[in-house]
Amino acid sequence: MDEIKFKPIGTIHTPFNTIENIPIQNIGAKGVRGTIEILKEFVPGLKDLNGFSHIILIYHLHKVNHSKLLVKPFLDTVERGIFSTRSPVHPNPIGMTVVKLLEIKDDLIIIEDLDILDGTPLLDIKPCLPLIDDIKDLRIGWLTGKLEQFETKKSDSRFMEF
Amino acid sequence: MDEIKFKPIGTIHTPFNTIENIPIQNIGAKGVRGTIEILKEFVPGLKDLNGFSHIILIYHLHKVNHSKLLVKPFLDTVERGIFSTRSPVHPNPIGMTVVKLLEIKDDLIIIEDLDILDGTPLLDIKPCLPLIDDIKDLRIGWLTGKLEQFETKKSDSRFMEF
Repeated sequence: MDEIKFKPIGTIHTPFNTIENIPIQNIGAKGVRGTIEILKEFVPGLKDLNGFSHIILIYHLHKVNHSKLLVKPFLDTVERGIFSTRSPVHPNPIGMTVVKLLEIKDDLIIIEDLDILDGTPLLDIKPCLPLIDDIKDLRIGWLTGKLEQFETKKSDSRFMEF
Repeated sequence: MDEIKFKPIGTIHTPFNTIENIPIQNIGAKGVRGTIEILKEFVPGLKDLNGFSHIILIYHLHKVNHSKLLVKPFLDTVERGIFSTRSPVHPNPIGMTVVKLLEIKDDLIIIEDLDILDGTPLLDIKPCLPLIDDIKDLRIGWLTGKLEQFETKKSDSRFMEF
């Protein structure tokens, strides 16, 4: 199938400048503050965004240079199918996080609760809506009983090794 | 900044074969069933996914051939900044939906609650986790008081017109 091409709309700046020791989900990144620098040409598209308390960032995991179909996730000791994990080495290295929106000043967006590497190219921003997230009877497979570990567990370099 | 290239991991098949009359969010698509056909090479990555009741699909809005920074959304009568909307004409046409996972048979995933056009190229699957979605004090800007309309409102062709 055809290759799909995207272009960054900006860059995410965070305190995390190595791939190790990053919170592995935003729940473990409470209060971590960063900024998004939006390319000037896209700034008009930020209108009305400041009414939203939380936004969804979709970004390119630009340091990932390989993928694996089975991985031993940070929260497990056995190999799991890649699509059942939030591991960065999916066939397409696309990241997705919900962050708190604090302020927009011209081309800068101040955000909080970040689990993102510094310098990450941003692909899209969407408003975070409750409907999408309000799911009853959620089952979470191999992650059952492990979720509270998201609050403390940090990344290591395992996904960068072949 | 550099162009980013992704390749589809499969194709989403749905009952919606025109861009008009598609539910505009999955809340309006309850019970709508479809299938994902995963490319053979990625099938091993589906291991363990069947433990999850809901999955996040990230896909290429392949019929979108332009973008706009201000749009009149389906749920409003005034122009809003594109990043404050779920309109398809974002600078990078990336779609994201949470769907119910019913069954996995080899390279086919049976899913429900779809608001997606037939033939859509799938870029990624992630497990849906409650932590990410469990947000207190959510504010939703211009969408305040309009959310229930997601249950009934259908798309029209407005975003295909310049």
